[in-house]
Amino acid sequence: MRVFLIVLDGMADRPSPKIELMTPLQLARKPNIDLLAAGGVTGIMDPVAPGIPVGSDTGHLALLGYDPYVYYSGRGPLEALGAGIDLGPSDIAFRCNFATVSDDWVVIDRRAGRISDEDAEQLSRSLLDLSLTSSRNLEIVFKHTVEHRGVLVIKGEGLSEKVSDVDPHIEGVKVHMPRPTDSSENAKRTAEILKEFLMKSKEILENHPINIERRRRGLKMANAVLPRGAGRLPTLPSIGARYGVKGAVVAGGAIYKGVCKAAGMDIINAPGATGTINTNLDSKFRTAIELLNKYDFVFLHIKGTDSASHDKNPELKARFIEKIDSTLGNYLDKITSDVIICITGDHTTCSTVGEHRGDPVPILIHGEGVRTDDTSRFDEFACSKGGLGRIRGLDVLNILFDLANITKMYGE
Amino acid sequence: MRVFLIVLDGMADRPSPKIELMTPLQLARKPNIDLLAAGGVTGIMDPVAPGIPVGSDTGHLALLGYDPYVYYSGRGPLEALGAGIDLGPSDIAFRCNFATVSDDWVVIDRRAGRISDEDAEQLSRSLLDLSLTSSRNLEIVFKHTVEHRGVLVIKGEGLSEKVSDVDPHIEGVKVHMPRPTDSSENAKRTAEILKEFLMKSKEILENHPINIERRRRGLKMANAVLPRGAGRLPTLPSIGARYGVKGAVVAGGAIYKGVCKAAGMDIINAPGATGTINTNLDSKFRTAIELLNKYDFVFLHIKGTDSASHDKNPELKARFIEKIDSTLGNYLDKITSDVIICITGDHTTCSTVGEHRGDPVPILIHGEGVRTDDTSRFDEFACSKGGLGRIRGLDVLNILFDLANITKMYGE
Repeated sequence: MRVFLIVLDGMADRPSPKIELMTPLQLARKPNIDLLAAGGVTGIMDPVAPGIPVGSDTGHLALLGYDPYVYYSGRGPLEALGAGIDLGPSDIAFRCNFATVSDDWVVIDRRAGRISDEDAEQLSRSLLDLSLTSSRNLEIVFKHTVEHRGVLVIKGEGLSEKVSDVDPHIEGVKVHMPRPTDSSENAKRTAEILKEFLMKSKEILENHPINIERRRRGLKMANAVLPRGAGRLPTLPSIGARYGVKGAVVAGGAIYKGVCKAAGMDIINAPGATGTINTNLDSKFRTAIELLNKYDFVFLHIKGTDSASHDKNPELKARFIEKIDSTLGNYLDKITSDVIICITGDHTTCSTVGEHRGDPVPILIHGEGVRTDDTSRFDEFACSKGGLGRIRGLDVLNILFDLANITKMYGE
Repeated sequence: MRVFLIVLDGMADRPSPKIELMTPLQLARKPNIDLLAAGGVTGIMDPVAPGIPVGSDTGHLALLGYDPYVYYSGRGPLEALGAGIDLGPSDIAFRCNFATVSDDWVVIDRRAGRISDEDAEQLSRSLLDLSLTSSRNLEIVFKHTVEHRGVLVIKGEGLSEKVSDVDPHIEGVKVHMPRPTDSSENAKRTAEILKEFLMKSKEILENHPINIERRRRGLKMANAVLPRGAGRLPTLPSIGARYGVKGAVVAGGAIYKGVCKAAGMDIINAPGATGTINTNLDSKFRTAIELLNKYDFVFLHIKGTDSASHDKNPELKARFIEKIDSTLGNYLDKITSDVIICITGDHTTCSTVGEHRGDPVPILIHGEGVRTDDTSRFDEFACSKGGLGRIRGLDVLNILFDLANITKMYGE
């Protein structure tokens, strides 16, 4: 049997005053997902532990069976892997935002007006050939991923991940100039390289034709790059070694691809998968379901639910869930009976505060041999009464591969 | 938002034959607590793990987020902190009972007829200036706390917590003379000091006017001090460092104050808070609710539920729960909407056997953003069907601070 894991990012929510104290999952009309819930087993799942709000990185590590307290080495390297950058063990990777900053480095917009892929792509090319005096014998790699997002990698020896985040994570304050966070020479040197990168890139970006044109059109300039999440390549035992399966991922965002790549899975690009609310859901579902013919384990990641919550728009989130539901409905009869389907999220994102929260996430598992329960709706409330009870992220793949009769016995 | 944690000590129970196989929570009429359960989310909570009966010390450590298997260093130092004694890292502290013993040290009453605060206070003063030949260069501190309870601290260098309990924990047997429990010189010396303290204190107590008067009136003499729970100052990361909050506790008993002091919280005395069933509940609730204006986290501890169970009186326990409920009811409208309220216990105390047991404890959480469930009564049975499912003591503060939007994300 095969396993099809569908993660709706930040899908779970808290009751929202904007939609009569329902959650988006409760508001959404989603007959196909509810049908799977009714015919399967449901529960609630804490990605890491009750009350612990996780990021995209730590949440997905846990969902794929890697305890983040053991394996997490920063967001940067996971983004870099997802962006298709080869990482050596001594390279240092950073997740970056294109941002709008004032002349004296106050952050005006952390996402440069949610800059388009096209503009960001062109700007990122101008940072390719950046030569820094502080980084002799080192290679500087910058790559754009989705919207305002990008990755910076400093490749070479004598570097350290012990450098502070440049991105202050909020607007209206000054960019944090990079500091070493331990007393090593390598950390000092890495912070200096990062600082020179900040200065040089700002100079180049401010004079770039794309930004001059953006200013002319009244758009926010993407005149700075804000790195954060410094880290080295994590070393994860592959899911092949762990579970004896061959896995593939269909995702838009770099971080999700990166976690899967680190786990030894194949990254399959679905045309039009953007990692945004405008993604091509049909393409993603079709690609993922086709992969079930070739892989034991297919992981489909859909990001828009999380983005709508960050924008404090529970209504949009509900509408997007409806869109996912109807697309899934078009493909349900193409999923053969020997597939265990699981739908869940990587964390709660609260549409009221617009941030990740530590509440548990509903989960449903459907397929041959699954012990069903009385729950016939997929939402935070109905699933809390489900037959799975309250489980953890680290349990999910174990349960799925066991239901698929793939897991080997522990003991004799 | 702020967090208000109300712990009813030993509140949970087993079905009792004395009250028609109900638990005291089921018997009690408690409309206000049930209202919070109906409007909030409920569940059951294992203080440490399913089936593990915990003490006041280990249970409260777990509830405040400290794994007792990591942080517990004996009851003595926690009682000493709660009694307001400054503890140095090399000092050894003991929890003590005033007890009634025979001439040949057989324990007649472990609580000296539940001696009054007034009598115990006067007796304890006579032990202040005790000079021991075995403890040169050391300071001996004895302090009475509540009823028969007190604290002994040996202050100085060259001591060890590796000494056995003097209190045999049951009546009708001989006091256990202190023994070193490892082969170190320090343990041997500490046991000798303790033995001399036992002898000298018995001599003083038996001739004390209070005891002569007690004997005349047919009351049990408090003619011995029984130390137990030897330990050194535990080093806990403060709740400020862990959760970024400022916390305060309102409690009668020393042990609860001590755990909170070790956690870096402020101890606030409510007038008339005695840690007994006759405590001034109105004063405790009023004090705690006022503190919510100044603290992120207020912990209100109420002891009487546990005492009634130890006395095998489930009916009294139910009546006391009713008193708590009506007092809470008087203050409910003074708790503002930006407060997350949690009501739970630190362990089950079984009114049939009169001891702590390892059954889970009901828990309710009420406040803005909380996912409600179908449970509308607060008891061991109704809460086992609640939306929280089955959680652990270590989860409680994580869940509460996350609901209060205080917790920082783990990962990005």
